[in-house]
Amino acid sequence: MKNPIGIFDSGIGGLTVTRQVINLLPSESLVYFGDTARVPYGTKSDRIVREFAWEDSLFLLRQSVKMIVVACNTASAVALDELNRYLKIPVIGVIKPGAKAAVKNTKSGRIGVIGTQATIDSGAYPTEIRKLNQDCTIFSRACPLFVPLAEEGWVTGDVPESAARRYLEPLLAENIDTLILGCTHYPLLKPLLKIIVGDSITLVDSADETALEVKAVLESIGQENSSKQGEYEFYVSDLPRRFEELGIRFLGRAITTVKLAEPWKATSATNFSVVE
Amino acid sequence: MKNPIGIFDSGIGGLTVTRQVINLLPSESLVYFGDTARVPYGTKSDRIVREFAWEDSLFLLRQSVKMIVVACNTASAVALDELNRYLKIPVIGVIKPGAKAAVKNTKSGRIGVIGTQATIDSGAYPTEIRKLNQDCTIFSRACPLFVPLAEEGWVTGDVPESAARRYLEPLLAENIDTLILGCTHYPLLKPLLKIIVGDSITLVDSADETALEVKAVLESIGQENSSKQGEYEFYVSDLPRRFEELGIRFLGRAITTVKLAEPWKATSATNFSVVE
Repeated sequence: MKNPIGIFDSGIGGLTVTRQVINLLPSESLVYFGDTARVPYGTKSDRIVREFAWEDSLFLLRQSVKMIVVACNTASAVALDELNRYLKIPVIGVIKPGAKAAVKNTKSGRIGVIGTQATIDSGAYPTEIRKLNQDCTIFSRACPLFVPLAEEGWVTGDVPESAARRYLEPLLAENIDTLILGCTHYPLLKPLLKIIVGDSITLVDSADETALEVKAVLESIGQENSSKQGEYEFYVSDLPRRFEELGIRFLGRAITTVKLAEPWKATSATNFSVVE
Repeated sequence: MKNPIGIFDSGIGGLTVTRQVINLLPSESLVYFGDTARVPYGTKSDRIVREFAWEDSLFLLRQSVKMIVVACNTASAVALDELNRYLKIPVIGVIKPGAKAAVKNTKSGRIGVIGTQATIDSGAYPTEIRKLNQDCTIFSRACPLFVPLAEEGWVTGDVPESAARRYLEPLLAENIDTLILGCTHYPLLKPLLKIIVGDSITLVDSADETALEVKAVLESIGQENSSKQGEYEFYVSDLPRRFEELGIRFLGRAITTVKLAEPWKATSATNFSVVE
């Protein structure tokens, strides 16, 4: 089926997931939406994140997507169930894949989770991990400054290092052997976090496992694309040029022609000029 | 005139200005709107900040305000001229008052300005300062992490200190004698910034001067309120309880009953239930 896969995030972080989907499924076409006008989601309420997630999803539906990937931990944590309850096409989040990767990796059963305030408050990771293995002990910590640090490009040096030490110390004291990077921005801080947690702790993110789940779901519903090479479209609600510039770091390849879309203006013709 | 003064900000920072307006004009009633669902504004484009500022202003107009105070440096920098061009009631920003306070204070004419990326990129402070005194030399620096640090409550300690040193060093090297805190969040970092800049540099913020301008404009149009004590209403687009809790620190007094409003849903009856 030629229709694209839709992927959305609060901003640019979801490109780390997109990258793995492209690597694993090169023949699939993608439409990405980043809500850069309303980023971040992780400091906001469940109510408002659900509202934004619906608007983002409806925008993708108008692009005739055959599946939606919620490439944002916060939106996955608070809006995924509701989207799946009402939409006919499959909607995949990043929490369950991240939990799966962590459970696969842990030996001691002591797992740390870091993420935005909203993701941590939701308890979504502990819930998913316990569904897979009831014997795991989970230690969670919100790290609100990691998103602005990654967006500012301060991923090494004094400031991110002191912030990371302050956030991670209580988790390290619990002798975890696995740390889930529960936010799609955090892979950018990986080199720094690796130094702070040391060799005995494995850092896991959801990107690889999410791509595997996208593949499995597409196969199960018989909707893989058989074309040679997928096509990629990128939309953001603000600052398209900045997204093109920063996107390379997240996506691992150049992004050309990022277009503007404002999903909260559902009736605006200009927003939906691409509708089939 | 009994109608309230309308004040808006991207979030909670505008309460530092509100505080001074209340102190100076205790008989005036106020309606405050904080756009906590879409905060921050300072990392976003002029285009989107103007759109949000219009929505915020229209919400306040529906509350029958007699004047609007744009208590947000970013929105003042990029949207004030446009609001004033089209609206009949006076619209006051925080940039001009901040510039005035700095020019009053400086002896050497060497003024530093810190603010969000959007405020600094706009060049609004240099423009206003030069209108008042052409001989000033202005050194600007965007400090994108200060807003998340203030919102996280990390206003002392290693992390904000390293961040502040990194941001301020180039300004300190220029021998400024005055530093404008060009963002309504920054007064929360004042004790730390004071230590870093030392006694030879004066920190100025816009709050006092803005309150004075509000008073002057009200008098010039003959619309002061003669009631004994003003009434205060607070609206936010997300997380009203959090606003009540954090607001005390910014406003210097308790805030009761913060209500929800989503100005981007202009047709929603529930948003405008308070309209006369």
